Amino acid sequence: MAARTYGQHATPTSFGAVVAAWGWPLLELSRGLPALREGALFVSLSGAAGTSSALGPKAAETRAGLARALGLQDPGRGWHTDRGPVLRIADWFAGLARGLAKMGADLGDLTMTGIAEVRLAGAGASSTMPQKQNPVAPSALVALNAQVQAQRAALEAAAVHRGQRDGGAWFAEWLALPPLVLGSAAALGVGRALVDAIRPEAETMARALDGGQGLIHAEALSFALAAALPRPEAQAAVKRLCAEAGDSGARLGDLAARDFPDLDLAPVFDPARQMGDAPETARAFAAAVKG
Amino acid sequence: MAARTYGQHATPTSFGAVVAAWGWPLLELSRGLPALREGALFVSLSGAAGTSSALGPKAAETRAGLARALGLQDPGRGWHTDRGPVLRIADWFAGLARGLAKMGADLGDLTMTGIAEVRLAGAGASSTMPQKQNPVAPSALVALNAQVQAQRAALEAAAVHRGQRDGGAWFAEWLALPPLVLGSAAALGVGRALVDAIRPEAETMARALDGGQGLIHAEALSFALAAALPRPEAQAAVKRLCAEAGDSGARLGDLAARDFPDLDLAPVFDPARQMGDAPETARAFAAAVKG
Amino acid sequence: MAARTYGQHATPTSFGAVVAAWGWPLLELSRGLPALREGALFVSLSGAAGTSSALGPKAAETRAGLARALGLQDPGRGWHTDRGPVLRIADWFAGLARGLAKMGADLGDLTMTGIAEVRLAGAGASSTMPQKQNPVAPSALVALNAQVQAQRAALEAAAVHRGQRDGGAWFAEWLALPPLVLGSAAALGVGRALVDAIRPEAETMARALDGGQGLIHAEALSFALAAALPRPEAQAAVKRLCAEAGDSGARLGDLAARDFPDLDLAPVFDPARQMGDAPETARAFAAAVKG
Amino acid sequence: MAARTYGQHATPTSFGAVVAAWGWPLLELSRGLPALREGALFVSLSGAAGTSSALGPKAAETRAGLARALGLQDPGRGWHTDRGPVLRIADWFAGLARGLAKMGADLGDLTMTGIAEVRLAGAGASSTMPQKQNPVAPSALVALNAQVQAQRAALEAAAVHRGQRDGGAWFAEWLALPPLVLGSAAALGVGRALVDAIRPEAETMARALDGGQGLIHAEALSFALAAALPRPEAQAAVKRLCAEAGDSGARLGDLAARDFPDLDLAPVFDPARQMGDAPETARAFAAAVKG
Repeated sequence: MAARTYGQHATPTSFGAVVAAWGWPLLELSRGLPALREGALFVSLSGAAGTSSALGPKAAETRAGLARALGLQDPGRGWHTDRGPVLRIADWFAGLARGLAKMGADLGDLTMTGIAEVRLAGAGASSTMPQKQNPVAPSALVALNAQVQAQRAALEAAAVHRGQRDGGAWFAEWLALPPLVLGSAAALGVGRALVDAIRPEAETMARALDGGQGLIHAEALSFALAAALPRPEAQAAVKRLCAEAGDSGARLGDLAARDFPDLDLAPVFDPARQMGDAPETARAFAAAVKG
Repeated sequence: MAARTYGQHATPTSFGAVVAAWGWPLLELSRGLPALREGALFVSLSGAAGTSSALGPKAAETRAGLARALGLQDPGRGWHTDRGPVLRIADWFAGLARGLAKMGADLGDLTMTGIAEVRLAGAGASSTMPQKQNPVAPSALVALNAQVQAQRAALEAAAVHRGQRDGGAWFAEWLALPPLVLGSAAALGVGRALVDAIRPEAETMARALDGGQGLIHAEALSFALAAALPRPEAQAAVKRLCAEAGDSGARLGDLAARDFPDLDLAPVFDPARQMGDAPETARAFAAAVKG
Repeated sequence: MAARTYGQHATPTSFGAVVAAWGWPLLELSRGLPALREGALFVSLSGAAGTSSALGPKAAETRAGLARALGLQDPGRGWHTDRGPVLRIADWFAGLARGLAKMGADLGDLTMTGIAEVRLAGAGASSTMPQKQNPVAPSALVALNAQVQAQRAALEAAAVHRGQRDGGAWFAEWLALPPLVLGSAAALGVGRALVDAIRPEAETMARALDGGQGLIHAEALSFALAAALPRPEAQAAVKRLCAEAGDSGARLGDLAARDFPDLDLAPVFDPARQMGDAPETARAFAAAVKG
Repeated sequence: MAARTYGQHATPTSFGAVVAAWGWPLLELSRGLPALREGALFVSLSGAAGTSSALGPKAAETRAGLARALGLQDPGRGWHTDRGPVLRIADWFAGLARGLAKMGADLGDLTMTGIAEVRLAGAGASSTMPQKQNPVAPSALVALNAQVQAQRAALEAAAVHRGQRDGGAWFAEWLALPPLVLGSAAALGVGRALVDAIRPEAETMARALDGGQGLIHAEALSFALAAALPRPEAQAAVKRLCAEAGDSGARLGDLAARDFPDLDLAPVFDPARQMGDAPETARAFAAAVKG
């Protein structure tokens, strides 16, 4: 299928590589859970002002024991005004919502009428437009991420406490953390169901990749020519051929064959040979997920 | 051309109506400038703590005179800690960036490979991909609006002063206001140039609207049938025909003519008669701009 | 009482002027409600894509009639992708939360141990610290405003629709608008109750204003001297006296009388004559509220 | 000195513990630099669409070699649309600005007229008020953090790319990253200089801690009584004594000695014995910094 930059066809990629790009950040979040638990799930037991004064001479032991009993870490001190651990947890959830929103944004684009490289089984029916298959779940992922982002920003604003505990900052954190976590969790549920509904349309992808004129291979052609010509000349030549193709509707491959009859153009215009490491990327991701 | 909701073809509209949707919010901003000047461009002259104590017995007259001399409004009191006027100015600029970003977002979509209902003259060349016409200006509008939004949020956070003047809030406003104004102004410059480069591709629009099967007329068909059948039956019938068209590749109009031979289908499948008030909207906007 | 800038005593003000500074923005919001209703409470009835195509030839009349029936305004066109009206409503609510947060922030400061110029009847008891009177309601106002700000930013991000309706942006607006409105309404309830609990401590205010040394009158002294001396010399002289007072603990008034025996210092060191227009400001606000 | 929660005196702490609370998050950032470099400073070399197709058969080796040459990490794949690494770098800088803003916020409070437990050498002079020592640097830290937060939110919004590279998101990142880094760096410079100017006022702290009535020891008294009485009775008794002290101006210690003559009150009302682990916290931080 065609990779897009700025919404424009750029070079060939594969649907597997696209899925891997969605999946790697999520897989890394999953792998990062143990470190997050160790670096952020802290017991908090150090009295009103963080000095443990009311907890008696064994305050440190008490805190350590409570941490063990609750399966939490003991940071070895009070951390009332250091909201870093809470923000690290929030960042994990925000990363989850963000990663799913990326999938949602791409599926919204890939299901657009006129592109339709992906179909979503059971996509949303419109109340009045019978022909429509609205990508409702992808839209929900985008929206949930927007809400999670807003709460992430609210947590950041609440992270500077005045004094040894700041009522306004503390309450602001209480208001922001639950919808952040719930929003990310909702996105996970939506995303999980959405994954089962994804139907890549291989024929549509292939047809779009070629686009009737094979212009997506212009970069590869330019690099192939650069083996024989100085690079600026190679680029200028391909640019000229692209313009001619645009005017005449001719295939770029035919024009290239006409002007550079000695060049071996087969690999240049074979999408399967122009995907770079897309297949390896997809396979590496699949292997990592299985692992 | 096809209107899109959720990225999907919905019902017919016109390019003029799309442009009017971009333009109305901008026109309203332009019309709102006098009220903004009156309601927000205030003189500030009321001493260190807003009491005018050091300005002598004629403090009010002095402030009023300064306002006149500078072409500003005199709110009749100090407003050190009421950042509402500054936020109203910021909202005006944010509205400008937002309105231009809407145009940018749509142009980004309308120039996508596979859609291409708009071409941008002189669009961005790629450094390595000779076939590409990157919608750089639309991307810049989207990015500038993101930056302006960030500064708008920073101003909101700086709008609660402690005491009679809050150093932290005041400095935060100083940091946020210039990039907000400059970002909006930059967007206006980019947008102004972009407007001249817009090339609607009427044939591509018309071809996409029909989509080979005329499914975009499903809603109109459903309402036409509802004149003869109970509405739920009409909707179910059209849904069935859409599904059949999807499977067989047939035109919806042909299927409708087969099943409902007595119905006058010509207006239903004529895009020019299914645009609703899109033409009036476009004309009203054009007249308003001229006015 | 002392006005503070940067947290430092600046010049004298009055508690009434402080209250007026809290109240003016709220009063203006109240006064702005009719204009808001007219400029933002719009009927939305223009079909799936904003063209009213399915609403028949009398679409405009239908929309106008619905607006009348619902007590809404008819903007005379579809406004699917122009979220300006929604943002104007949101700004009103954000202004409410912001105005109340200003009162909350000041009450948090004015009730600080060591300042205590205001006492809050029925302030929050601490679970373990019997001496404490936590300003819980002011903290809640600060926190609710932080949440409202976050939702305001989320609405701004959701205000750029792609195409004729954008699922992601639309859903994001649904998620942000209710907590914004509810958060502001909650702040109004908290603020309303808080107002009844405010107990200004006049003696503490007066004592703090003088601060034992009368340094808050330094600016007034400097302006009084400037009637006789060049301004830079006057400022330098007062700066020197302030430094001497700081070292020796002497009263600024005594030092000034020693060095400038001919000057009429009574008005300079009389707080009631150094409040500038603070009393008028307070009275004007009270009259405006009654009106 | 008195620890404050909700701005109210809570229990005794030490200035060293306050400094440690400022410092720990900064020290952890410093310690986290190597992991950040490894987990986020990635080489990016994988072609226009992330497939390395134009980089030839040795693309992976080329990327690894470039990483080595530049002292960067090689993530082993393209990461065009995964802005996680950039956000991790941004979070580090945001944490820096946040940590410094906490110090700024506390110094703003501790230098307030009427509190003055810290003096800042060379604090900002006022242009007209000779007595003032404005905490300008603390205000700057608060403001810089607000700006950095705004840019952090802008980066989050720019972190969801559409397709294989998203012009709008990419440009938005370009606009946000430099001011985020520069804002944090500026805060570091301001903070570094500010540290040298901090003058803790030990006598003022001690006087404020006692407050003339020793009410800050109410919690400790309550826990001491709870050794002899049921806890609710102990709490009620102390609450009663606090109220009596409030009415009569008596010292809490005297009232306690009157009502509980058999209790050893010396440790309860000795601040040095009511600081809990504040001294250890301060020493542990100092040792960690030296280490």
